[in-house]
Amino acid sequence: MSMRISELSRQSGVPVATIKYYLREGLVPPGTPTARNQADYGEEHLRRLRLVRVLADVGGLGIAAIRDVLAAIGDESMPLHDVLGVAQYALGPPPDAAPPAPDVLAARADVDAWLRAMTWQVSPESPSRRALADVLVGVRRLGLPAGPEIFAPYAGVADELARGEVAALPADGPAAETVEWQVVGTVVFEAAFAALRRMAQERHSATRFRRTRRG
Amino acid sequence: MSMRISELSRQSGVPVATIKYYLREGLVPPGTPTARNQADYGEEHLRRLRLVRVLADVGGLGIAAIRDVLAAIGDESMPLHDVLGVAQYALGPPPDAAPPAPDVLAARADVDAWLRAMTWQVSPESPSRRALADVLVGVRRLGLPAGPEIFAPYAGVADELARGEVAALPADGPAAETVEWQVVGTVVFEAAFAALRRMAQERHSATRFRRTRRG
Repeated sequence: MSMRISELSRQSGVPVATIKYYLREGLVPPGTPTARNQADYGEEHLRRLRLVRVLADVGGLGIAAIRDVLAAIGDESMPLHDVLGVAQYALGPPPDAAPPAPDVLAARADVDAWLRAMTWQVSPESPSRRALADVLVGVRRLGLPAGPEIFAPYAGVADELARGEVAALPADGPAAETVEWQVVGTVVFEAAFAALRRMAQERHSATRFRRTRRG
Repeated sequence: MSMRISELSRQSGVPVATIKYYLREGLVPPGTPTARNQADYGEEHLRRLRLVRVLADVGGLGIAAIRDVLAAIGDESMPLHDVLGVAQYALGPPPDAAPPAPDVLAARADVDAWLRAMTWQVSPESPSRRALADVLVGVRRLGLPAGPEIFAPYAGVADELARGEVAALPADGPAAETVEWQVVGTVVFEAAFAALRRMAQERHSATRFRRTRRG
């Protein structure tokens, strides 16, 4: 398959101007030059465009983060686990912009200790440690003296779910494909799960509270 | 307990200017006038301020939505289930600002049919129906021909979790308190669950992919 940039745009759904921007930024490899200011593109360009679009549109990644993920995919000495880590960590939350407040530091220490006690092996660099600590800070700032143990019922459920999700990732195809699946799966099912949980709350609330009058 | 606005601010952690704004907007009832431009506040003001803060800061609700939730709480003829519904629906997503695209309408119809097939009783007005359809639209726009059945494993888990959450809500105290719990629980554990799931993915990925090299 060989096509002009207009056809590449049509098949990928990415506007020509955006493709040109990705080409300038090096996120998509150059095509084969055919004439002055023209080039041919192929299957590999289509696949790369889809990956970049997943990272940008689904994952919300900026150009620099996308470049990091592409570099990890391109580094064939990097175990797949580490490539997936680069992609997951790029989803955020971003590193501290300012020194964290004392209650944030305290919550992080509590989350770290709790994860250790559960023997969850998670890198000290994981942004999700900070995300979880932020949740704890929010609860505590409301005046509720909570510890990370309030998360315990959720940890068990999340763990079961994640085990199945990781088992379902393709392992022997190109790393780019596994990364694509992981990013789509992480972001998409996060939103889906939140919506499903709210609807399930509604139906159980109907059973429990439909007839509850106050006063 | 009787206090000036400065003490109310200290005890609630809400700045005096914000309290005055809430008073003007009618979100907090007026205090007992004591002198020209002064008033006394009590326990009820503290509780109301905490609720407004949860709705605004945790739930991200605007003034109009907070007013709707407070009105539902104040209407003692309204069953608790409906009060909780007003609070949950206020969390969004907001109604359509423009007529939805054809693929959005198609996804909504698919989600509706799927929920019916699962016999989940969820109001046609639930914003979470739209949220779930939006997820499906996102997946399909990537070129993946998915149906709502991809959400099935998540529905089962979300349902189990929600059953326990609703059972844990206080039923016989003031409705305001139950609403507070529900909003905190919904928003806070949504974020916590997402962070836990990512960390669990990391640990299972380590087991499965640590040694997977490519090439």
